[in-house]
Amino acid sequence: MSIISDPQQIEKKSFEIIEGLLAGKGLASPDKDVIVRVVHATADPDFADAMRFSPGAAEAGIAALRAGCAVITDVKMLKSGISMVNSGTPSEVFCFISDDDTADSAKEAGTTRAAASMRKAHEMGLLNGAIVAIGNAPTALFELIRLVQEEGARPALVIGVPVGFVGAAESKEELAKVTEVPFITCLGKKGGSPVGASALNALIKLAKS
Amino acid sequence: MSIISDPQQIEKKSFEIIEGLLAGKGLASPDKDVIVRVVHATADPDFADAMRFSPGAAEAGIAALRAGCAVITDVKMLKSGISMVNSGTPSEVFCFISDDDTADSAKEAGTTRAAASMRKAHEMGLLNGAIVAIGNAPTALFELIRLVQEEGARPALVIGVPVGFVGAAESKEELAKVTEVPFITCLGKKGGSPVGASALNALIKLAKS
Repeated sequence: MSIISDPQQIEKKSFEIIEGLLAGKGLASPDKDVIVRVVHATADPDFADAMRFSPGAAEAGIAALRAGCAVITDVKMLKSGISMVNSGTPSEVFCFISDDDTADSAKEAGTTRAAASMRKAHEMGLLNGAIVAIGNAPTALFELIRLVQEEGARPALVIGVPVGFVGAAESKEELAKVTEVPFITCLGKKGGSPVGASALNALIKLAKS
Repeated sequence: MSIISDPQQIEKKSFEIIEGLLAGKGLASPDKDVIVRVVHATADPDFADAMRFSPGAAEAGIAALRAGCAVITDVKMLKSGISMVNSGTPSEVFCFISDDDTADSAKEAGTTRAAASMRKAHEMGLLNGAIVAIGNAPTALFELIRLVQEEGARPALVIGVPVGFVGAAESKEELAKVTEVPFITCLGKKGGSPVGASALNALIKLAKS
C-alpha cells in the first residue's frame, strides 16, 4: 500500500475529492469554504446538504474575527479544535462548562451545565459581539436563542451545530428561524464539536487572508 | 415546543432511542456499551455497523484502565473529550502533537506531526501497556501499526478511528488485520475525535463499575 504522508499532499488530495463531491451544488465562497471544511472534518457529505446560513452570516463572522472578537464554546472539545488560538484571531476563546459556579447554577435551575454556561457568558457581558459556537448541547443552543430573543443578547454570529437524538434537530430548527442575529447551522440530528470547530476554522482562515 | 432540559432525562431518552436502533443486531456488553456510546456521541447509526473489535478488545481496555494505564491520543480534541480525567482512571492522558520536538521531527521525516507524536510516545516508552486513541490522523495510525509490527510496541489497546477522505479507511483496514495487539476501529471514511473519546469513555465507565 502506498501511504501519502506529506501533510500538504494529504490536504490537497482531500480537498480535490471534496470539490468533486460538491460540484454542481452551486456553492460560493465564503459559505462554500465553511461547507468544504466541515465535510473535510467529518468525511460525511451529508453535511453539504444540511448546512444553513442566514444571509451574510459567514461574512459577519469574518468581520467579527477581523475586529478581534472573542469566541465562546459550549464544550472543551470544540474549544480544543479551534485552530490558531493565541494568534490574535479570535482574541480569546472561553468555555465555562467546567466552572464550579456553572455547575452550581445548573443544579439550581435543573438544567445542563452547558445551558448554564451560556447564561454565565451573558451575565459577564461576553455574548455581545462574540462568536458563539455550540457543538454538543441542544440545551445550550435553546438557552442562547432565549437570551437573544428575551434578554437582548447580540452575538456577532451563532454557530449552532449540536448533535444528538434528543433536542438537537429541534434546537437547530429553532435557530434557523432566528432573525435577530446571524447564524450558521446544520439541520438534523448530526453535528458535533468537529463540525463547529471546522466551520469556525474556515472563517478564521478567511479572516486572516 | 417542550424542551427536555434535565440532563438525566435527556440521557435516558437518548439511550432508549439508541437501544431501539440497535435492537436485533445481537450486540452484547462490553462491545455494545462502546457502540451505544459512539452512536450517542455522533447521532449517526452508521457507526453501529462500522465498528469492529478484535476478540476481547473491550475487555483488554477495561483491564488496562483498572490497572491504571495511561492513554495517548493523536489530537487535543480527543484528549479534551475524555471524561473523568484526574480521577485516576485513566492515570494520565498524553498528547504530543503540539510539542516543539514533535514538529521538528515531523518536518525532518516529511510526515505529519500526529505520526511523529506516536514515534515520540514510543521512544519515551509510553506505548507499552497504554491505550492509544487515534481520532484524526490516518498517518498516526499507520505509524502506530508500524511501531507494533516492526518495533515491538505493545499497547494494551488501540482505539483507531481516524476520519477523512485520504488514508482513513485504508488505515483502519490495516488495523483490522493486526493480530499483535487488541483493537477497536470503525471501517470506512467516517470516524473522529468524538468517536474515539466516546468509545474510550464507555470503557472508563465500565472500568469504574
